[in-house]
Amino acid sequence: MFEFHIRKEPMTVDHSRRSDRIVARCRALAACTETPGETTRTFLSPPMHAVHEMVRGWMEAAAMRVWVDAVGNLRGVYAAASGDEAGPRLLVGSHLDTVPNAGAFDGPLGVLLGVAMVEELQGERLPFAIEVVAFSEEEGVRFGRPFLGSLALVGEVDDAWLARRDARGVSVEEAIREFGLDPAGLPEAVLDENAFAYVEVHIEQGPVLEREALGLGVVSSIAGQSRLELTFLGQANHAGTTPMLLRHDAMAAAAAWIVAVEQYARGQSGLVATVGRVETRPGAGNVIAGEVVTTLDVRHAEDEVRERAEKELLAAAEAEAHRRGVRVAKHVIAQQAAMPMDGALTELLGSAAERAGYRTRAMVSGAGHDAMIVGRRLPAAMLFVRSPGGLSHHPEERVLVEDVEAALATGMELLRGLDVGLWDERAR
Amino acid sequence: MFEFHIRKEPMTVDHSRRSDRIVARCRALAACTETPGETTRTFLSPPMHAVHEMVRGWMEAAAMRVWVDAVGNLRGVYAAASGDEAGPRLLVGSHLDTVPNAGAFDGPLGVLLGVAMVEELQGERLPFAIEVVAFSEEEGVRFGRPFLGSLALVGEVDDAWLARRDARGVSVEEAIREFGLDPAGLPEAVLDENAFAYVEVHIEQGPVLEREALGLGVVSSIAGQSRLELTFLGQANHAGTTPMLLRHDAMAAAAAWIVAVEQYARGQSGLVATVGRVETRPGAGNVIAGEVVTTLDVRHAEDEVRERAEKELLAAAEAEAHRRGVRVAKHVIAQQAAMPMDGALTELLGSAAERAGYRTRAMVSGAGHDAMIVGRRLPAAMLFVRSPGGLSHHPEERVLVEDVEAALATGMELLRGLDVGLWDERAR
Repeated sequence: MFEFHIRKEPMTVDHSRRSDRIVARCRALAACTETPGETTRTFLSPPMHAVHEMVRGWMEAAAMRVWVDAVGNLRGVYAAASGDEAGPRLLVGSHLDTVPNAGAFDGPLGVLLGVAMVEELQGERLPFAIEVVAFSEEEGVRFGRPFLGSLALVGEVDDAWLARRDARGVSVEEAIREFGLDPAGLPEAVLDENAFAYVEVHIEQGPVLEREALGLGVVSSIAGQSRLELTFLGQANHAGTTPMLLRHDAMAAAAAWIVAVEQYARGQSGLVATVGRVETRPGAGNVIAGEVVTTLDVRHAEDEVRERAEKELLAAAEAEAHRRGVRVAKHVIAQQAAMPMDGALTELLGSAAERAGYRTRAMVSGAGHDAMIVGRRLPAAMLFVRSPGGLSHHPEERVLVEDVEAALATGMELLRGLDVGLWDERAR
Repeated sequence: MFEFHIRKEPMTVDHSRRSDRIVARCRALAACTETPGETTRTFLSPPMHAVHEMVRGWMEAAAMRVWVDAVGNLRGVYAAASGDEAGPRLLVGSHLDTVPNAGAFDGPLGVLLGVAMVEELQGERLPFAIEVVAFSEEEGVRFGRPFLGSLALVGEVDDAWLARRDARGVSVEEAIREFGLDPAGLPEAVLDENAFAYVEVHIEQGPVLEREALGLGVVSSIAGQSRLELTFLGQANHAGTTPMLLRHDAMAAAAAWIVAVEQYARGQSGLVATVGRVETRPGAGNVIAGEVVTTLDVRHAEDEVRERAEKELLAAAEAEAHRRGVRVAKHVIAQQAAMPMDGALTELLGSAAERAGYRTRAMVSGAGHDAMIVGRRLPAAMLFVRSPGGLSHHPEERVLVEDVEAALATGMELLRGLDVGLWDERAR
């Protein structure tokens, strides 16, 4: 009873100090950048060497065996009570790459929380090993497609992936060699056969937890995504000499559709739909737009709802275009199914938070995460940490120290509450 | 009676041949370009030398005295019956510069029709001199503001104008010198004190004449223009993690406004309003637009209608923005009053067309033209030639030979019908 009561005090001095350290480490990594004055660190870019050196140092100090796999994931294993690494293994991780001009926490927080969990054990061994995985690539910036690091972990980096080229013409394969790694080692990057679960802590990157004054959220599912490009093809014409009723204004058609997208998504619970990029051609103030390229991003936890939305929004585009003698061309960029988190593991995570004294809420992740990829092979769960102002992918991205503390305390409770036998059973 | 009847035959063999020649000359000038494979000829660009050489040759062959003024306008005078150039002078002209990837007729047609009118006189002298003015700059491409050529003619090129710089950092003054001209001569570029009227033939650049199966239109007024930039300032955020109701989506606000612009303009007779350029920032498919820059172009023959439209459309922008927690910033780029053409001269032009056997309609020009600038100093009138498909500012811009013939025949009737005494009277 006494112990339980202590755990309900989230801000003991000790705890604040250990969480301060996690935040400070995130900020130290943020200084490693391709672009001075901001944080930009793409897949296997030169500053990633310095990041690896720092994280490796912390891992080794916590008695972990550390290596960098063939796709550049930094990995550290903390052996089990049995003394070896051959037994059941819990994976904890997130990513180390960033978007351009990023904040300090999107990715690194989950990696450094994993390291801190091992540190908190202070040499104590558990019935399972812990592997902290720091993925080399999650944001998709350098090669235009995300999740390269976690795809290597699940054995899904194929030749097409290796042949992709970045803006400077460097292929993935060449980038791996330039970093000092050997693509031939990719098969050994695949996760250990005794791995039984994956847990990822990540900032929410949205405003929901803040709105509800909660520090933590437990992710029930990662939303499916449809990403399309819709091009409205009208007729460019003189803005001064073409009467309104003789126009085929591609921008007017696109605008009417964008309004319809907003209205539709507002009317469907849990659906988000976004037109984030609009490009007018020729794009002059005195010329009616003849061509407008737009993007559509639709997400929902239920694939059926998302697929219906995609179909109905396309029909709306065609209706608004038709009304103006404009045509619509559709190009599907990506269609990704929703990934439910493992129910039992997620429940354990929620009850670990509760035992640690924190209220959480179940929530759908609208953003994609490494857990979505690793979840194809392992039971996976995610813990969200409140994002002040809902801000992410922004230099002012923040976390509250008390929320980091809550996540760490939850992680420690989870470690102690895991019944490995159960997971061994499930894996079979 | 017999003569009148002949004039009603628009397509005698002779006439077709002389009009074919005008079209062929326009196409010959179109081959003079900064960009091989298309027609792009901005203010005082190198290919303008070749254009001047050709037009000068045709003018001199028609017994005109030719010079290039200090702003690069090519000018040719055909003396009056009195044998000198000191008496009353009719100005006929248009411009020789083009937009990027232009057609062959926007501008050159009016210049070469002026030359052809002098040729058609076959040495016959009239009670007044004719000056054909080929303006060096009307489109505003190189220095971002139009009408440099005609502004020099009315004495309105000031030091600020001379200091403007193009994309390569070259000032107007330097461009003039590079072309081999002397900016000190600008005062002498001002129109002759005995000039009594200006007539410009131009393609319609719109679909109205074609819709009504007319070859010619007589311009009653050049519409006033308001050109603004409206910036919608919302909040960039993650497209997956930000629920619809917590967004400040600048693109959704801009889209709702663009729809309102279209609806408003459709409801006001003669009004055109266009959002031709939209720029989303950051402009990624998975990020809610935090900032959207739009252009607004509003035109009407009555300034009062245009000014009211500008005010009401701005209010609509603010309403749509407010609804989404988005702000609007307004930047006025240009506000130009409507320029009515001279009533009496326009009537003469219309009756000249009728005598030549052609039906015309009065129409408002939605596009700006040199006549708008010259009209500040002289009675001005404009004759529009049908634009097949309404196409202009496009390599496929065309004219029909029979319409060119109609314009030439109308021009000849006008020359013969002008009572210079009347104009002398008005000028006083």
